[in-house]
Amino acid sequence: MAHPAEAATSTSPDFASVLHRYREATRARLFRYLPRAEPREYLYDLAADYPSRGGRGFRPSLCIATARAFGAPPEAALCTAVSIELIHNAMLIHDDIEDESEERRGSPALHVREGVPIALNVGDMLSLLAMRPLLDNQAVLGPWMSLRILEETERMARESAEGQALELGWRRDNVWDLGDADYLTMVLKKTCWLATIHPMRVGALIGTRGRIDPDRFVRFGFFLGAAFQVQDDLLNLQGDPEAYGKELDGDILEGKRTLMLIHLFECASDSEKQRLAEMLGRERHERSADDVRWVRDLMDRYGSITYAREAAHGLAGAARYEFEQIFGGLPDSPDKRFIEALPEWVIRRT
Amino acid sequence: MAHPAEAATSTSPDFASVLHRYREATRARLFRYLPRAEPREYLYDLAADYPSRGGRGFRPSLCIATARAFGAPPEAALCTAVSIELIHNAMLIHDDIEDESEERRGSPALHVREGVPIALNVGDMLSLLAMRPLLDNQAVLGPWMSLRILEETERMARESAEGQALELGWRRDNVWDLGDADYLTMVLKKTCWLATIHPMRVGALIGTRGRIDPDRFVRFGFFLGAAFQVQDDLLNLQGDPEAYGKELDGDILEGKRTLMLIHLFECASDSEKQRLAEMLGRERHERSADDVRWVRDLMDRYGSITYAREAAHGLAGAARYEFEQIFGGLPDSPDKRFIEALPEWVIRRT
Repeated sequence: MAHPAEAATSTSPDFASVLHRYREATRARLFRYLPRAEPREYLYDLAADYPSRGGRGFRPSLCIATARAFGAPPEAALCTAVSIELIHNAMLIHDDIEDESEERRGSPALHVREGVPIALNVGDMLSLLAMRPLLDNQAVLGPWMSLRILEETERMARESAEGQALELGWRRDNVWDLGDADYLTMVLKKTCWLATIHPMRVGALIGTRGRIDPDRFVRFGFFLGAAFQVQDDLLNLQGDPEAYGKELDGDILEGKRTLMLIHLFECASDSEKQRLAEMLGRERHERSADDVRWVRDLMDRYGSITYAREAAHGLAGAARYEFEQIFGGLPDSPDKRFIEALPEWVIRRT
Repeated sequence: MAHPAEAATSTSPDFASVLHRYREATRARLFRYLPRAEPREYLYDLAADYPSRGGRGFRPSLCIATARAFGAPPEAALCTAVSIELIHNAMLIHDDIEDESEERRGSPALHVREGVPIALNVGDMLSLLAMRPLLDNQAVLGPWMSLRILEETERMARESAEGQALELGWRRDNVWDLGDADYLTMVLKKTCWLATIHPMRVGALIGTRGRIDPDRFVRFGFFLGAAFQVQDDLLNLQGDPEAYGKELDGDILEGKRTLMLIHLFECASDSEKQRLAEMLGRERHERSADDVRWVRDLMDRYGSITYAREAAHGLAGAARYEFEQIFGGLPDSPDKRFIEALPEWVIRRT
């Protein structure tokens, strides 16, 4: 199924080295923004927890690579990249509470360890700490561009909260009359704005000193981010538990709207649909391992997993096309090649 | 106990009219910042819920009055005042989740009505919506002052989250070896920065076009805000249920650290302390009306309520003194008189 070219591109030493370099640069700067101050036990030590657990650094790397591909000097996008990674971690804390997730990056979720009240407050603090590097942008980028990036950040966070609202609402009210378009609207907002669209928008604004229309990146970011999300959901069903870091099949337990589950609802018989809706309408702890196995078997029977895998490949292909439209005219560079390799990388992650 | 002058000042038509005017101006502008857009049912309609329930408008009024007292034109502080009111409402949503509060302004708390996941996300969105008026400050105040106010806002929110962390940590771990100084540190951060210090800091920065040291307002804001908080806690024990809008005695049910409870721990016998700690260490729903009555009786026996009332009066007196140091030299105006009347007002609210 995979193109031979994909393996070559996504495992190329160039790709890995760019990702590694930008990830490490971001992390080194990020930890400077986590105060070593009181109250430690109930706040600042916990704010460092999720960032310390690792993460691929995909979002900040995309921001820095885009800025560099458009001509920015090395340090220009670093503060912005740090803010993206901080906001990502802040959202993970709140998402884990909202989704009742039990694990994150191979350890108990923060609210499982510390209780919901303290974890919620730590998430608020991490969002706030993301403001500091954006304010520090003034020294490098000046006041106008700093405010421009704050505006972009506000837009991105608003899109993310809208996407989260859709998913949480559907889940609470057990809404299942959803099609691919509903799913993709939710993913555009909940995943793509933070994961791909925003990092490229602000990166390109920094690289061109504001002389670009950031809306040019919405389409590429959407295809790339949606492929990323579908692949992520597939890994939840099929991944290697060691490498994955969350509960396998946790999405089914959580009743998460995935392309596979929406496909299954479209294909299942009326009686199966009824049983699915009844089962997914229960509280999380009222769903058993047997329930999950039944859903997984049904997905295999109706080809839902194959369908989603093909959709991810289709989205990645569309992303490759869009890449050419936006980045095609720029001079060759490791940063440009890094971004070019992303569509393959997102669907080949394990 | 009340000075004859207090009644006269706090019920003066001037005071009420300034509060009313600034409150209404803030609300009219605030509702323009609440999108009438999808997703309504799970997000934007709910974002308007707490602001629609009312509130005195104390915080935004203090911001506008300070700006005007220092010479700002009428509209200069309005966007900033709106951001303060939005952040206040956002924090109420998250605080209500964290404190397991059941009521807010006379109706069920948002998470009681909508569930924790959706309410949490709505709180995130309200915080975000507070960014917009701060970015819109650019048109009136220019980029430099807009960034300055964003920096002030970030500082205030950080102080608030630190104060909240202290209280949540003490509660989770059933910490009771606390003195007045611990209580006041927590209140300084959790209450005063948002309620009094920040509104005056940004108001004065706007009024003087940045030509003032905002740290001058910390002491006055602390005394004023602490008097406000102690009075609020007293109302929870003694208020009129209709006017109060929250559950009476709810603080005892929540195990909230109040000056009365800390005083009680200091005065109670060892066996009473033990019983108090055991009772307050249970889950909220495991505390009965009998438990609450026992605590209330004990507070009466040890004079904890009188002690707190006297502390509130002492703090208000200190605030009156500090007022003279900061505002004394400014020309007379309704705004200056409004701020001057606040120390009496906060301790005479019912």
